[in-house]
Amino acid sequence: MISTKIKEAMQQGSAIRDMFEKGKAIKAIYGADQVYDFSLGNPDVATPASVDEDLRFALAQAVSHGHGYMTNAGYEETRRVVAEREIKRSGVPVEPEGIVMTCGAAGALSIIFKSILDPGDEVVVFAPYFAEYRSYVQNAGGILKVLPTKPGEFLPDPNVFKQAISPRTKALLINSPNNPSGCVYDIGTLTALKHVLDASGQSIYVVSDEPYAEIIFGDTKLPSIFALFPNSIIAYSWSKSLSLPGERIGYVACNKTCEDYENLISALAYANRSLGFVNAPALMQRAVIAFADKHVDPKIYEKRRDMLYNILLDSGFSCFLSQGSFYLFPQSPILDEEIFVDECAEHRLLCTPGSAFGMPGHFRLSFCVSEETIKRSASVFHTLGKQYGLI
Amino acid sequence: MISTKIKEAMQQGSAIRDMFEKGKAIKAIYGADQVYDFSLGNPDVATPASVDEDLRFALAQAVSHGHGYMTNAGYEETRRVVAEREIKRSGVPVEPEGIVMTCGAAGALSIIFKSILDPGDEVVVFAPYFAEYRSYVQNAGGILKVLPTKPGEFLPDPNVFKQAISPRTKALLINSPNNPSGCVYDIGTLTALKHVLDASGQSIYVVSDEPYAEIIFGDTKLPSIFALFPNSIIAYSWSKSLSLPGERIGYVACNKTCEDYENLISALAYANRSLGFVNAPALMQRAVIAFADKHVDPKIYEKRRDMLYNILLDSGFSCFLSQGSFYLFPQSPILDEEIFVDECAEHRLLCTPGSAFGMPGHFRLSFCVSEETIKRSASVFHTLGKQYGLI
Repeated sequence: MISTKIKEAMQQGSAIRDMFEKGKAIKAIYGADQVYDFSLGNPDVATPASVDEDLRFALAQAVSHGHGYMTNAGYEETRRVVAEREIKRSGVPVEPEGIVMTCGAAGALSIIFKSILDPGDEVVVFAPYFAEYRSYVQNAGGILKVLPTKPGEFLPDPNVFKQAISPRTKALLINSPNNPSGCVYDIGTLTALKHVLDASGQSIYVVSDEPYAEIIFGDTKLPSIFALFPNSIIAYSWSKSLSLPGERIGYVACNKTCEDYENLISALAYANRSLGFVNAPALMQRAVIAFADKHVDPKIYEKRRDMLYNILLDSGFSCFLSQGSFYLFPQSPILDEEIFVDECAEHRLLCTPGSAFGMPGHFRLSFCVSEETIKRSASVFHTLGKQYGLI
Repeated sequence: MISTKIKEAMQQGSAIRDMFEKGKAIKAIYGADQVYDFSLGNPDVATPASVDEDLRFALAQAVSHGHGYMTNAGYEETRRVVAEREIKRSGVPVEPEGIVMTCGAAGALSIIFKSILDPGDEVVVFAPYFAEYRSYVQNAGGILKVLPTKPGEFLPDPNVFKQAISPRTKALLINSPNNPSGCVYDIGTLTALKHVLDASGQSIYVVSDEPYAEIIFGDTKLPSIFALFPNSIIAYSWSKSLSLPGERIGYVACNKTCEDYENLISALAYANRSLGFVNAPALMQRAVIAFADKHVDPKIYEKRRDMLYNILLDSGFSCFLSQGSFYLFPQSPILDEEIFVDECAEHRLLCTPGSAFGMPGHFRLSFCVSEETIKRSASVFHTLGKQYGLI
């Protein structure tokens, strides 16, 4: 018999998988090109050709120097390049020693929480949030405390945060640009959160999950977490910025001013090993030396966002204009958005219910699809808008 | 502050790291070529040239088809090839659905224990054993129950196993060829263990960690775990067999007859995702399709084993003749082998104390070093043999 614990966890997390299975079934019937699949955050924009070249070069290097183990934190040269990247992003000092290379941002978050949480410790996150956070926190014995955001704008409310802090609060988890809302936390909001942290008199880590950092639209600015929060840790991956999610390459960066800095670095490397990651894939670590600062053109996603956003408005939907990421998170026309999402599937339009992100009443559209697919989906959204009396 | 729990775990597991740091310091003083480093299980035999070619081909494929996410269990084609490989090895039916691609054998074991263990469940292992097993089991809330082997031969004693089974026993963990002893469990021993399992009336998974399966010496035969144990799960990686440990590529294979088969597969894929692995590195999965059945020539390691074994005997050490893996595990000339290992380091000879493998009184020598290094180490072993009155 498998573990009762994992059985229960699997049952809880089945909404997205159900949709995935339903999507597969629908595609099998109608053909994949007849389905409008907005359900997957699997970037379809091609990896830049220069990055393919970096990968070829990295492979040649690996053939000469081998594919052996390195220290659990990663190749020194890779960590040096990543530290420089973080200095450029933040303007504050970042040391190569403060970098631990990981199997993507998921691996990064998993080892961060394993390193900082004792059983019963709390991690605060604002809804909507990426559902897997709960797994990473629970795997370390922690408790994910989900707080509401300000209605309609998806921004954290500092007062709500203040009231939620308990003696067991160990970390504030931030994800901006946000999956699924596309909200980017402005400097005012972040500064207000910082005041709450300062006034708490507690040591609370700010853990910032930043896989969408380069996918930013218009003149939106992404404030530096390192520059604002001395006690901060960044989780990053090139999964979205270079369309490399299958390759599992990312890192943890520790602010030099963060608490228990040296022990934290040791703990991260230890957790990398003891959870079974051991180290980030060696070949990708070699390639990072060349591609660390590269990213796909965010304008590609911005154009899609505009197209899809306008279709939604034309069809009567109410939607926050995403400032980054590749998601839109419109309001469901009915309270129970899972019923609405099922209805969408009847029209061969696949999306994800907001309840999967701790925020019912909304649904997530991922625009990792061609402009052509977005264009063709207009008639379906229009039909749905009419059906639900939005237009 | 970091987690108290991880701090304690790090302190416990510090013996090998201390040796690693000591080794680095010694190499910095004398130069790496003046140090006999038998401490690391980091294969130095070159990855076969045909595998480098497979990697280039896989990269070309990835450039055409992308580096996207696939299902958490891995590419279908890769799983099909691995299933065929396991059929060839065992002679029993293995389904592609029963394969989950992982970040090496470490990732495989981590998700296996997460899938089958509830807090308080026990995993039985025989000493000596690879120290990281404890981390993987504990991360799933389980308890590692370490049993002694028969003196001098490192083989499990079925009677000892029988007495150790409790109502909470969930798995028997086997590692043959064994790290660190080099012992290969013969068919008689395995059959005796099977009788104990059958007689227990309990459902106990046999989890077999097989990274050294192809590094077998002389006419030693490695019995198939799948053929013997209906309720079995294999963890494999190409880290040792193709000298690819940095690349993190391996798999879990589930025997079609194992208990709760379908739920187990779902749980493994779920654990792959929820622990933050998400999936095994995509590029390596593509390459597996070509290199699944390849391995380095075990004769290279066998020649080294013979050289080192003879040096040990000539120097008066008592040592089991390794039947596989790339380790020898001689007896320490003094009871406290940690003191002996420190003394070795004084002679610029690095090895690992048996206590790191749950078996004090021995020390591990890894022959992932050149024949030249082994030859040159003879005088040091001779000096040590004299110093301790062995010759």
